[in-house]
Amino acid sequence: MSDPTERDTATKKRLMEMAKVWYDQMNNGEIPSITLPTRTKYNIEYDDESEVWKYGDKESVRNAGTAKSATHMLKMAYVIWFIKTQLQENRSSTLREMYYISEGWKQAKFGAQNESNYLIEDLEIITAMQREFFHMRPEEDGASIFGPIRIRENTRRGMKEIHCQDDVGEAGYNIPNNVENVELVDHDASCVIAIETGGMFSRLQENGFDEDYNAVLLHLKGQPARATRRMLKRMNEELGIPVVVFTDGDPWSYRIYASVAYGSIKSAHMSELLATPSAQFIGVKPSDIQRYNLPADKLTEQDVSALRAELTDPRFATDFWRKEINLQLEMNLKSEQQAFASRGLDFVTKEYLPSMLSEIGVLKR
Amino acid sequence: MSDPTERDTATKKRLMEMAKVWYDQMNNGEIPSITLPTRTKYNIEYDDESEVWKYGDKESVRNAGTAKSATHMLKMAYVIWFIKTQLQENRSSTLREMYYISEGWKQAKFGAQNESNYLIEDLEIITAMQREFFHMRPEEDGASIFGPIRIRENTRRGMKEIHCQDDVGEAGYNIPNNVENVELVDHDASCVIAIETGGMFSRLQENGFDEDYNAVLLHLKGQPARATRRMLKRMNEELGIPVVVFTDGDPWSYRIYASVAYGSIKSAHMSELLATPSAQFIGVKPSDIQRYNLPADKLTEQDVSALRAELTDPRFATDFWRKEINLQLEMNLKSEQQAFASRGLDFVTKEYLPSMLSEIGVLKR
Repeated sequence: MSDPTERDTATKKRLMEMAKVWYDQMNNGEIPSITLPTRTKYNIEYDDESEVWKYGDKESVRNAGTAKSATHMLKMAYVIWFIKTQLQENRSSTLREMYYISEGWKQAKFGAQNESNYLIEDLEIITAMQREFFHMRPEEDGASIFGPIRIRENTRRGMKEIHCQDDVGEAGYNIPNNVENVELVDHDASCVIAIETGGMFSRLQENGFDEDYNAVLLHLKGQPARATRRMLKRMNEELGIPVVVFTDGDPWSYRIYASVAYGSIKSAHMSELLATPSAQFIGVKPSDIQRYNLPADKLTEQDVSALRAELTDPRFATDFWRKEINLQLEMNLKSEQQAFASRGLDFVTKEYLPSMLSEIGVLKR
Repeated sequence: MSDPTERDTATKKRLMEMAKVWYDQMNNGEIPSITLPTRTKYNIEYDDESEVWKYGDKESVRNAGTAKSATHMLKMAYVIWFIKTQLQENRSSTLREMYYISEGWKQAKFGAQNESNYLIEDLEIITAMQREFFHMRPEEDGASIFGPIRIRENTRRGMKEIHCQDDVGEAGYNIPNNVENVELVDHDASCVIAIETGGMFSRLQENGFDEDYNAVLLHLKGQPARATRRMLKRMNEELGIPVVVFTDGDPWSYRIYASVAYGSIKSAHMSELLATPSAQFIGVKPSDIQRYNLPADKLTEQDVSALRAELTDPRFATDFWRKEINLQLEMNLKSEQQAFASRGLDFVTKEYLPSMLSEIGVLKR
């Protein structure tokens, strides 16, 4: 559904169907209700077909039989009305704005920001549509991209065609908050390298890695935004470009990788849209600290608990991760990706990345 | 010094002069030394001419008479050599990379990251040159810009001319980490609005404020990066565009404004380059919470201490700020800029901003 008008019509229809179900329930003398999967890590299952983690079969039913649940459904009805208006007027808003707008909704006013966030997630699950289709904008834009790919963005100021190497400054093309407005036109890329730090993004650019290897460089800016994950997924799925994730070597960075490759528990209902199961990890591994004799720091208490938690996280239940995580706990060390600089500023682009990319089969030279 | 080669030559010369002083001192049988202003808030003074806060007269001398100071100067010598090599080879690096590279400097190896950061600041002070001239890159890029201004960026892939409304996507033009490579070509702007949150940046764009008022929208992304502050300064100084800062109404946001307008204590030696003294505050004021009946939250303990600290901060020693800060402590409330949404999504662009901009004389309609 790349045509915006078509998308809006379909979204409106889906939301109206929800209201119709309630209407019919009431008409039949039933108490209106909604059914949702239980959203905890005990209800996450691996889906073989799509290769992502999704919510399992456990469901919870919420019906308007109690004052609390009735209020919740009233809020949902208000939100549906709000979104419908947005779609009709071709406007958009942030979750934060919607929260403030609810000031005028009397009993349906939200008590706290996370309440409205959660409700939008519920609506995403029920309608099986992403919030971007509701014209709900995230606060933050996505990552920046620099490399041999041409996009076409449908902006409020008309259609813009941008080559992400030739038509941008050194800071690259900024992924907008709604990636559905971006069309991937063509490319000449061997892979997409999603990079954790700005320093490493610039290092690869300065060393000409994008030119020498036709690599698309993408600066993740920490835990990747929805728009970033969606963009990675689309470059991988629509254009068939392999995605690799290049991070520091600590538990927080492994989570960044996991959220790109497997999705997150919080948005398991969006995994099919946001996760790139074939994305491979080429960040600093505990075994690399030994192999390359990298400068390292001791693990903090928080690091140790995070690593332990990852040992029980289904997303890290592979031989590779278990071996590396156990090794890290044993060594009690972590290294940053920029630590490769201790072997010279060219080491990462002349040695480390080419050898890693060949090892995992992305580079065939 | 917009010509990069000229800039590099001048920088190298200045650094070599430092080494020459040491050489001469040793030749004369003196102990080599450096003199620096004391870098605390007790040595910050308002400079009437440039209208910014700078370091005062207090100085501290460091000479190589003790092992500790001698090691410090050895490190400085290594850093000077490192920068000289960078300039010769036309390369650049981050502070983090330099920290790791010092692994090979034996006794001059840095013990911690902040040690190398501090040393670069010392070099900035002594040479009166910004670290960007040393080819030291910050980790993060600057803010994004959307509005009627055309720039020319000297990138590693050639010269790029970009109109920040016509040639970019909705996320705007990303300010690169070295603003000295950007030339401001021409513009059609009435003002630059530096905006704290991404939600409000998109709101103004969606509502067409950039078109209706020829406003350049700039998304600060929290505490503004050096590149962002330098860009604001240059747009104001070179093009004469008024700068206004639009933030939330809490002590942290006032600090964002202060760092744009007055500079920060940490980089007081860079104030003339980074601060925009004429920048005016149009963020949410405590008096606005009453005036517009905005949804508000109670102050936290941290908020209260931060407000109290601001009452003794020389940068907030004006009637305006003292009145507003005292009012806020009394009301015990704070509001976010997106709280204007409680009065409808158009209120901020149809009512609040036009009236504020007229009030402070930026808008003459």
